[in-house]
Amino acid sequence: MGLGPDVKKRIVIIGMGFGGIRAARVLAGTGHDVVLVDRNNYHLFQPLLYQVATAGLEQESIAHSVRAMARHWPGTRFHLAEVSGIDLAAREVRTATGVIPYDYLIVGAGSVTNYFGMEPVERHAYDLKELTDAETLRNHILTSFERAVVEPDPARQRALMTFVIVGGGPTGVEFAGALIELVQFVLAKDYPELGTHTARVILVEATGRLLASMPEKQCTYTLKKLRSMSVEVLLNARVVDAGPERVMLHDGAVIPAHTLFWSAGVKAAPLASALAVSRAAGGRIPVAADLTLPSQPEVFVIGDMAYLEQDGAALPMTAPVAMQMGMYAGRAILALESGTPLPRFRYHDKGSMATIGRNAAVASAFGLNFRGYLAWLVWLLLHLYYLIGFRNRIVVMLNWVWYYWFHERQVRLITRRETKDRL
Amino acid sequence: MGLGPDVKKRIVIIGMGFGGIRAARVLAGTGHDVVLVDRNNYHLFQPLLYQVATAGLEQESIAHSVRAMARHWPGTRFHLAEVSGIDLAAREVRTATGVIPYDYLIVGAGSVTNYFGMEPVERHAYDLKELTDAETLRNHILTSFERAVVEPDPARQRALMTFVIVGGGPTGVEFAGALIELVQFVLAKDYPELGTHTARVILVEATGRLLASMPEKQCTYTLKKLRSMSVEVLLNARVVDAGPERVMLHDGAVIPAHTLFWSAGVKAAPLASALAVSRAAGGRIPVAADLTLPSQPEVFVIGDMAYLEQDGAALPMTAPVAMQMGMYAGRAILALESGTPLPRFRYHDKGSMATIGRNAAVASAFGLNFRGYLAWLVWLLLHLYYLIGFRNRIVVMLNWVWYYWFHERQVRLITRRETKDRL
Repeated sequence: MGLGPDVKKRIVIIGMGFGGIRAARVLAGTGHDVVLVDRNNYHLFQPLLYQVATAGLEQESIAHSVRAMARHWPGTRFHLAEVSGIDLAAREVRTATGVIPYDYLIVGAGSVTNYFGMEPVERHAYDLKELTDAETLRNHILTSFERAVVEPDPARQRALMTFVIVGGGPTGVEFAGALIELVQFVLAKDYPELGTHTARVILVEATGRLLASMPEKQCTYTLKKLRSMSVEVLLNARVVDAGPERVMLHDGAVIPAHTLFWSAGVKAAPLASALAVSRAAGGRIPVAADLTLPSQPEVFVIGDMAYLEQDGAALPMTAPVAMQMGMYAGRAILALESGTPLPRFRYHDKGSMATIGRNAAVASAFGLNFRGYLAWLVWLLLHLYYLIGFRNRIVVMLNWVWYYWFHERQVRLITRRETKDRL
Repeated sequence: MGLGPDVKKRIVIIGMGFGGIRAARVLAGTGHDVVLVDRNNYHLFQPLLYQVATAGLEQESIAHSVRAMARHWPGTRFHLAEVSGIDLAAREVRTATGVIPYDYLIVGAGSVTNYFGMEPVERHAYDLKELTDAETLRNHILTSFERAVVEPDPARQRALMTFVIVGGGPTGVEFAGALIELVQFVLAKDYPELGTHTARVILVEATGRLLASMPEKQCTYTLKKLRSMSVEVLLNARVVDAGPERVMLHDGAVIPAHTLFWSAGVKAAPLASALAVSRAAGGRIPVAADLTLPSQPEVFVIGDMAYLEQDGAALPMTAPVAMQMGMYAGRAILALESGTPLPRFRYHDKGSMATIGRNAAVASAFGLNFRGYLAWLVWLLLHLYYLIGFRNRIVVMLNWVWYYWFHERQVRLITRRETKDRL
């Protein structure tokens, strides 16, 4: 150590998500020149965005400065920029603030929300992919209640307190549970003049079950639990149109609602078009068994952008897949440099989990299915563990303890007076 | 108690600042109908805005939901609205969401930054009055360093790292100290590729001393301390013009700088024009000895908006004055209702203080002058004490301890990619 490799290579990593930072960790201190690129100066812990949106956490507590991490990663440097293009032939990454040549490239730019071409839905819906999305949604939810207080028309008042959530995956389930608890435990006390018991949280799922990737027992528990918390769950239902004050379902039913939240699909980030002409479902980039582009062995694609099948099914677009791919890509480059290529990438599924509400979560791991309090505790601990930044962990834990003891979510601030045009 | 007053009165309080919330506390539970009005749904602890702007605190930790407070104040209700006008004859407050009639009115809408008509300065300067101002300024400071990293021209690079602060009062002094520490302790490590030692923090003060309201020994200590921290202090100097990349002084000197921060003056909030035709310096409203409008004994004006002389000098526009005025106005209304009017308002000056940096502050109270470590400890404890919300206190204390031990300010996030047009 200290001498570094025989030939120092320039490795560029695009995207400081779950995959990118793992790749950076592996490559740091190996003597190579590692350039980290992201359009934000922080790593975002996306799985907790819904808690920022429901006033449970301050936005800063789920983000961590890339430079703060890079300090501890020798040989890395950070370049804040949006990537505008990739020249595979010239081996260059293009940004507004300069061109970055590379010997190896790791691309993990993640995914964006997929509205499947439904333009009115896209215009009126809220989603949770970026930090500002969470703040915007929190402001919108709280502003809706403030508007409801001064709304004389009871029908419009109820529509202001009606929230339609599309997509019964982990994000939809967790957001629905956190939102109904926000209304029942916190806002009911904040707005004594308002009949907050008439507020509606409606979860719309296109298939016949929630958390479809989990064993059926878990799905049934989740459905029962959410319904017992007064979430209206509509299965086998689809949202097909939306306006500022209403949401329309596939069967023509119209729900008067001022809030539409969309978590029914994601697709690869637009940067994918710079890497491949033919793409798989969701715009993802088909990669070889070692995560490289088939025609470009020096370019790795990781995380949500990568399309790879294993045991007959495509790997899911989740954080654990991205993390394992990131570590693999880093190791694969080191292995190539030392002349002993790695065996093919293989994803080790450690299980999945989702929290529904207080003392209630589902977790499936190692063939075991946990439900209720134990699953909820495991969920809390694992999320704290994977959160980056020790101070962030303390702040998040403090907020969770506070909420658990006092039924209080303190961050119910409307930090911007303007909201989306739908209000 | 429990029966309430003989005649229930409607009391409207405009502004949930330091004065407004004290008035609300006094009037809560007295049987009157108290309506709290603010355009934000939170009370903001303005004295710590500069720490949000210098990445030391998350913005949510210095704000506290009004409804969270009002829960504990029987007989009060909150109305989120910007006041568009006050009809003194009809005794009505007008907002976009309705008219609120009153029997008594307490107006504490605070102050806004005063650029003294210098339009180019106003267009290019940053200030700290609202929560978003602090986030905007933090984003701008961090973005300036990110731009400096990729700037090939050394002169422009240095201008990106040059910060001109106008006004040697507490805000200017505290911001200057916090900013130079951010650069020297934190950003120097974040940007090893940048010569951050060439960064400049320039404090421009129009008079011959800093913290002019304090005894001379304190001013001298502050000047010496700031200079020892490498802040360039220009006394008897004024900023007269500004552009996106430069600041011009009264003597024609031009400082190449991408950041201009203005804390050289405040004036009463625009709402003051709805209350009085003739106004005192800074647009403040001259009030009678009991804080009422001379022609309107049911209308109280408190805090920065009120102009009142005591012992031959105008009371300062500070939080302690606002707090005492708020409590007085609440008590004065109760006294009027019980037929025994209060004696005239009298401000009890408990002293003033400002923090300069680590282990360094000045405090003057009860004829005693503290400097250095002790003053700094007192400053910390008093600010924690006056901060609203127990959870906020814990989060703020956690950040302070973290910074003190690890020289780390964790909230160095650029949360919005767009900044003011000057970049």
